[in-house]
Amino acid sequence: MAEVISDIARMQQTAESLRLAGRRIAVVPTMGALHEGHLTLIRKARELADVVIVTVFVNPLQFGTGEDLERYPRDLDRDASLASAAGASYIFAPSAGDMYPKGFRTSVEAGSLATVLEGRSRPGHFRGVATVVVKLLNLTRPHVAVFGQKDAQQVVIVRQLIRDLNMMTDLVVVPIVREADGLAMSSRNVYLTASQRAEAPILFRALQRGAEMVAGGERSAEGIIGEIGTLIRSRSGGVIDYISIADAVTLEEQSECRPGHQLLISLAVRFGTTRLIDNIQVTPA
Amino acid sequence: MAEVISDIARMQQTAESLRLAGRRIAVVPTMGALHEGHLTLIRKARELADVVIVTVFVNPLQFGTGEDLERYPRDLDRDASLASAAGASYIFAPSAGDMYPKGFRTSVEAGSLATVLEGRSRPGHFRGVATVVVKLLNLTRPHVAVFGQKDAQQVVIVRQLIRDLNMMTDLVVVPIVREADGLAMSSRNVYLTASQRAEAPILFRALQRGAEMVAGGERSAEGIIGEIGTLIRSRSGGVIDYISIADAVTLEEQSECRPGHQLLISLAVRFGTTRLIDNIQVTPA
Repeated sequence: MAEVISDIARMQQTAESLRLAGRRIAVVPTMGALHEGHLTLIRKARELADVVIVTVFVNPLQFGTGEDLERYPRDLDRDASLASAAGASYIFAPSAGDMYPKGFRTSVEAGSLATVLEGRSRPGHFRGVATVVVKLLNLTRPHVAVFGQKDAQQVVIVRQLIRDLNMMTDLVVVPIVREADGLAMSSRNVYLTASQRAEAPILFRALQRGAEMVAGGERSAEGIIGEIGTLIRSRSGGVIDYISIADAVTLEEQSECRPGHQLLISLAVRFGTTRLIDNIQVTPA
Repeated sequence: MAEVISDIARMQQTAESLRLAGRRIAVVPTMGALHEGHLTLIRKARELADVVIVTVFVNPLQFGTGEDLERYPRDLDRDASLASAAGASYIFAPSAGDMYPKGFRTSVEAGSLATVLEGRSRPGHFRGVATVVVKLLNLTRPHVAVFGQKDAQQVVIVRQLIRDLNMMTDLVVVPIVREADGLAMSSRNVYLTASQRAEAPILFRALQRGAEMVAGGERSAEGIIGEIGTLIRSRSGGVIDYISIADAVTLEEQSECRPGHQLLISLAVRFGTTRLIDNIQVTPA
């Protein structure tokens, strides 16, 4: 069974001792509510390192007002036992008060990457993500950090901040893990009603349709986005927040799908009060 | 003679190897143009660690438009030999292009600490300072970082960001080193004309007068600031940018000098095109 550490000084000392002993450390940052997607990240981390630290922290800094901070599912005992079974040696579960003590005021900003897509819909979200990622990497001192492609923009921002701030951690990204019907696994899927759950797989089917259009030679982003939107609206009660075709590195919105240019097709759709995101990467031939 | 390293990957690997070998690392971040103030920091660093890394980097990110980035004095050979004599084992002198490669876009923000005093006069300055300090600490991986009290606000911000971002570095602050006549040592003193140089010691004398007033029981910040300003204006051609009495930790401006409350009296004054800063800390009895 993994050891659960909540004290931040103890986590840092433990990690530093492991480094000095020559052990290779991988970290998997999570907000808990672990599902098969997270467990895939943890198993990947175990392949890449001697010691896997899973962080479980529902980071208040990345939730906006009116978002689901309070109702976000929390069950540390369950998370610890699932993470252990998948290969974690340590669960780091700090308190919000220890992570953001009185007088806390430093933040990490991702610049233009933070104000598009999810960042446009969720102002301040990526300030919270970037800041907590830097803190968690400093506390767990990993050789490698494993993130999921599900949060595509987060991955782009973490890659950028590791490079820009010269953090000594390699980023490994694991493909999205999906339910049998294609719905991307998410801790927020539990919020869905039965009928919403039945409709939600349209998101991935619509993204696949978009990727097929790109593969088939369609170059107009507007045409592809229109088709994805029509599919979602016609097959579900989902309310579209955004559908985007952007440069996979700069996240700049594209009007044209140029050959050889790696693109991120991403979307956010609300089913009632539940907001789901999904994405697919394509490179036009 | 210290080894000069300009390659950032090599610096990071060297530092990490030293850590893994159990050596204690101290870093002294500088913009070069070393004077006795810097050498005091380096000698202090040598007392505190096995290996001293002096960074020499004129950080473009902390200079505003119209400031002295281009004319800032640079002489790496001289700096390397002075730093070596004072106890440095490595001089880390990266290029601006390596520190801020194409596409660089992450920044570290110090919040309210960055917008007062020097930050009000120099917008963006402390974004540049905080960002480069995080980068330099990640590249040199020190157990201890030695800074000078001369840049009082920088010290407050670095202390805050080390705490807030959980960086594993202890901050050591060295008192201001002064010329025989009281002028705080600064790489910018070389810009002064002979008559400006003769007048500049009034800054410290005026700060001392302010500290005496506090010690004598004066509680009105306005009264003390007025006296400091009068002294400077009457004894020099210096143009006052600001004179401040602030909380030494939060940097919030104070109207009253309360007993037991640690205060930072600080100022910035222009002599022609040269802007000098100085400060003194006092705690009313």
